[in-house]
Amino acid sequence: MNQSMGIVLYNGEFQNSDAVGIDPTDRGFLLGDGVFDTMLAVDGVPVFAEDHGLRLMRHAKILGIPCPLDCTLFTSMATTLLQKNGYTHGRYAIRTTLTRGPGPRGLKIPDMPPLHPTLLMHAAPALIPQGHVNLIVAQSVRRNEGSPLSQVKTLNYADNILALHEALAAGANDAVILNNRGQVCCAASSNIFAVLDGQWATPPLTDGVLDGIMRAKTIAEKKVLEISLYKDDLIRASALYLTNSLTGLRPARLIAVSDSQ
Amino acid sequence: MNQSMGIVLYNGEFQNSDAVGIDPTDRGFLLGDGVFDTMLAVDGVPVFAEDHGLRLMRHAKILGIPCPLDCTLFTSMATTLLQKNGYTHGRYAIRTTLTRGPGPRGLKIPDMPPLHPTLLMHAAPALIPQGHVNLIVAQSVRRNEGSPLSQVKTLNYADNILALHEALAAGANDAVILNNRGQVCCAASSNIFAVLDGQWATPPLTDGVLDGIMRAKTIAEKKVLEISLYKDDLIRASALYLTNSLTGLRPARLIAVSDSQ
Repeated sequence: MNQSMGIVLYNGEFQNSDAVGIDPTDRGFLLGDGVFDTMLAVDGVPVFAEDHGLRLMRHAKILGIPCPLDCTLFTSMATTLLQKNGYTHGRYAIRTTLTRGPGPRGLKIPDMPPLHPTLLMHAAPALIPQGHVNLIVAQSVRRNEGSPLSQVKTLNYADNILALHEALAAGANDAVILNNRGQVCCAASSNIFAVLDGQWATPPLTDGVLDGIMRAKTIAEKKVLEISLYKDDLIRASALYLTNSLTGLRPARLIAVSDSQ
Repeated sequence: MNQSMGIVLYNGEFQNSDAVGIDPTDRGFLLGDGVFDTMLAVDGVPVFAEDHGLRLMRHAKILGIPCPLDCTLFTSMATTLLQKNGYTHGRYAIRTTLTRGPGPRGLKIPDMPPLHPTLLMHAAPALIPQGHVNLIVAQSVRRNEGSPLSQVKTLNYADNILALHEALAAGANDAVILNNRGQVCCAASSNIFAVLDGQWATPPLTDGVLDGIMRAKTIAEKKVLEISLYKDDLIRASALYLTNSLTGLRPARLIAVSDSQ
């Protein structure tokens, strides 16, 4: 089954994705040893490109992966990618994947010879979100507040895939994921905000929350309080919102709440 | 930099790894959406092949990934792989990687059209371990006892990479990873056993412990008690051991213990 990505940027060259093959020794493939970014583009222009570029570099640094792009190059490559695909009108998602690159067997980060990180940038149409997001609270999985990588957009998304799968199977659109202390973290690919007694609130990153670009924008814009939230806060909130870079700020509501959490 | 894997089994065909390119839309690469197994082979014969094959299928099922191998085929493919590489004398590691395969953008598990899982099996020399493993207790990261995937050999190894990196930077060989409750789970790629008052003990899987093949073998052989362990138990233990499939049962010792955990 071919899921063509159209023209992609792969290790410095624009080429058709059908011609791209990831090295089977790539540590991104074998161990999830990498980070990524998903950014909206509207009418050929990447949105908040500098924020996305800076975060990609920040997250790569936490894993000790050298980033072959600076912010200027990141933005210009994204813009060129859109042009080469004819994606200059409408909404598109640009995903940038950066891995530690090929390596020998084992977990140990290779030091000699120096690694060549793998960089893949591709674009795909992004839908305009409609209406409320119906949420459940995930029963299947908790978020790992004890890992600094819970704040980082690494390639390790299996937990989030499980949570989303649970939500869709329950007839919802997304799942709120709690940490091991029972505190609210985020949804499968969004940050979460609650309005409590007129005050906007969102959990601090240290509760195990991904450092979202739209999260930071919303905190600044709405004067949001960063405070630990619990399931009961979501129930009593006058409004809930999810944010991510593709859908912006989107209203949400809990459609089912279990007492077992 | 080319890290050749020699002859590999890739989606049903034996071929040189240089000719293999992983589809850039592979969910294993983009999202860590897959599982793997590492098995020892000695003198051309895979060790505990049935256990490894069954675990791979069990773990794939937890993620809902169809496994294109049964145990018999898994073992015969592994044996053929060794022969094709001329790895019929000495110790080798056979790694089998199974991902959900290529998919469209996003976390949602695609249902239409049906996915084609990606299967890669490759072999590499395995060293004979020497002497004690010097351990620290990881400060950088905790294990996620609240995810069922903490028991599953998924491709999500970034936390373990961080823990091992911390250990090596501290002059140790490996790191004991605690869960968010402060209980001992495992090392970066091994299970852990402690001998306490003459009784062998290891943490239960539900504490966030990977379901290791050698762990199960050792529990059966040594009449091991499955009980939650804490850092203090490791300090007072008369002996510590690590197990994994490549190194078997290996003595270990704590070389540094912080009071901050």
